[in-house]
Amino acid sequence: MPLTSDQLETPCVLIDLAKAEANLERAQAYANSKGLRLRPHIKTHKLPRFAKAQVALGAVGITCQKLGEAEIMADAGLDDIFLPYNLIGTAKLARLKALHGRIRISVTADSAYTIDGYAAAFTDAAHPLIVLVECDTGLGRCGVTTPAEAVELAKRIAAAPGLTFGGLMTYPAAGKPDEAFAWLSAAVAALDAAGLHPPVISSGGTPDLYRAESGDLVTEYRPGTYIYSDRFQVSRGVNSMDQCALTVLATVVSRPTETRAVIDAGSKALTSDLLGQDGFGFIPAYPEAKITSLSEEHGVIDLTACARKPAIGERIEIIPNHCCVVSNLFDVVNLKSPDGTIETVPVAARGKVA
Amino acid sequence: MPLTSDQLETPCVLIDLAKAEANLERAQAYANSKGLRLRPHIKTHKLPRFAKAQVALGAVGITCQKLGEAEIMADAGLDDIFLPYNLIGTAKLARLKALHGRIRISVTADSAYTIDGYAAAFTDAAHPLIVLVECDTGLGRCGVTTPAEAVELAKRIAAAPGLTFGGLMTYPAAGKPDEAFAWLSAAVAALDAAGLHPPVISSGGTPDLYRAESGDLVTEYRPGTYIYSDRFQVSRGVNSMDQCALTVLATVVSRPTETRAVIDAGSKALTSDLLGQDGFGFIPAYPEAKITSLSEEHGVIDLTACARKPAIGERIEIIPNHCCVVSNLFDVVNLKSPDGTIETVPVAARGKVA
Repeated sequence: MPLTSDQLETPCVLIDLAKAEANLERAQAYANSKGLRLRPHIKTHKLPRFAKAQVALGAVGITCQKLGEAEIMADAGLDDIFLPYNLIGTAKLARLKALHGRIRISVTADSAYTIDGYAAAFTDAAHPLIVLVECDTGLGRCGVTTPAEAVELAKRIAAAPGLTFGGLMTYPAAGKPDEAFAWLSAAVAALDAAGLHPPVISSGGTPDLYRAESGDLVTEYRPGTYIYSDRFQVSRGVNSMDQCALTVLATVVSRPTETRAVIDAGSKALTSDLLGQDGFGFIPAYPEAKITSLSEEHGVIDLTACARKPAIGERIEIIPNHCCVVSNLFDVVNLKSPDGTIETVPVAARGKVA
Repeated sequence: MPLTSDQLETPCVLIDLAKAEANLERAQAYANSKGLRLRPHIKTHKLPRFAKAQVALGAVGITCQKLGEAEIMADAGLDDIFLPYNLIGTAKLARLKALHGRIRISVTADSAYTIDGYAAAFTDAAHPLIVLVECDTGLGRCGVTTPAEAVELAKRIAAAPGLTFGGLMTYPAAGKPDEAFAWLSAAVAALDAAGLHPPVISSGGTPDLYRAESGDLVTEYRPGTYIYSDRFQVSRGVNSMDQCALTVLATVVSRPTETRAVIDAGSKALTSDLLGQDGFGFIPAYPEAKITSLSEEHGVIDLTACARKPAIGERIEIIPNHCCVVSNLFDVVNLKSPDGTIETVPVAARGKVA
């Protein structure tokens, strides 16, 4: 007999398949309408089946953040992976070489150090490694900070026999697409002047996904969170709470006072990521409830504002603040079909930190 | 040839075995000097070998927070486990029954609902389930909020043929041992008056471990973090930075500006737990550096205050704010012997959320 969510032990993760698929279709349709190629980031779901679904809908390939994720996805048959990271050190370069031998893989660099490492490991001009230059267009994380530096690194890549210059990549500061656009425009002009036209300009981020435009500049977009979405994305106007596909199912294990409930989902299930939200998640069945604190295995809920209150033993679904980090905490997730049946699947690329 | 830490891929977790052992020995010696029995919480290490080491040093048993952790520990031979949680629902009670059939297990309840569930599942008066009453002595999480309620629940446990009243359990608010002491003293007096003397009074928490006193009241103490310790515990005066046994080893992958470094350890390695600290960890080799922000796979470090600055490719060790949650993120940890050799072991009870 097929499993239903009543039979699942809590805490656990539920994925509403119809909502996830609708989220994928909506984003692909938007990208198509704007002439953007999608290259979804798998960090959110970490599941080969969803990566394949994204490609089947029209994505040109996928994005992974760590070699361990790319290895899992390549094993599952994904054959075009972008790994926007500075890969450094003998062990990681050996793993990158192994991937490069079996799929189309592209990477980034933001320093001569990283490029020189790639150049030493990849020497076959007939099968070069594709290297994009990472650009800091305002976020303040990795990336060269001026278009002039981008040109210098592009030249260094182009000069290495076993490397090929793949273009520019940025993770823009959320809500500041104009800044990123101005930065990239200046860099493209400088590259064109140097005879190094970037074949790909890759941007990303679900918060600005539905404001993304090619503008004859950006060619690829790397959204991740959009497949499930979460409370933070709702706060950014990406979609409604009802379109969020991932929830954490928890049980009320204690009602110590009239206004306090405690659930069996703590920071090991919901994570302590706040992302500017008030409390650690949203409970659709009790919208006035506030998850005020988490310890590892307990979540404390303030019910002061609730007319109706949950009883001990009751199960509640929570839309987390940040769904990507939740995926990383669970060995399995439960995929819920429209008929209510559940399929439990391992989160294949979970915990691939290296 | 034995592995050394140079050969490990980053990010990864290093455990300094000599420091961990010294931390265990110090706590056991302190407890012995105070007439307290230790029942260490395994949530910090999640490793059977350390649970066994704790018992070998004199602990009366161990504490687990979830059934999944207790099952792993029982499989490894630990035979006296305290599970201070309201275990609710058919599936969890069946798992509890299975554990009760093979080891000495004790649990808690803070409601008639939870007790009635235990009473329905456990009916053998010759082999009763030991149930302690959880008391909220100031933390504001689970637990009855008055001594009178504790007496009511103790009576309810004692009245169930298959249960036996095991005593009182609290997780006190850190830094407020006097409040907890006053609460528990009143509860013991009320229980004694009702003819229900509590055989065990269990308290816990590493922050107040070295201030814990039996005071002829507390009989058992459940510290967890003390084995590794972390930046938060140092801020509470538990030990020095140099005594912290767990570090995250990371590589500097980018130096985009004179004052910024980016490492390959983000919230998937260090977690977003701040616990009141300034930044997301302490870097002993660069004590003036500040880890200002984490995304999932990147940590951004402000080097403004550093005279000496790390170069790209350099490896740095980080003492995290909260070591327990770090253990939960890594499939394996690397145990470092005094001679520098490394043994990589799976974190057996990692990710046991249910």
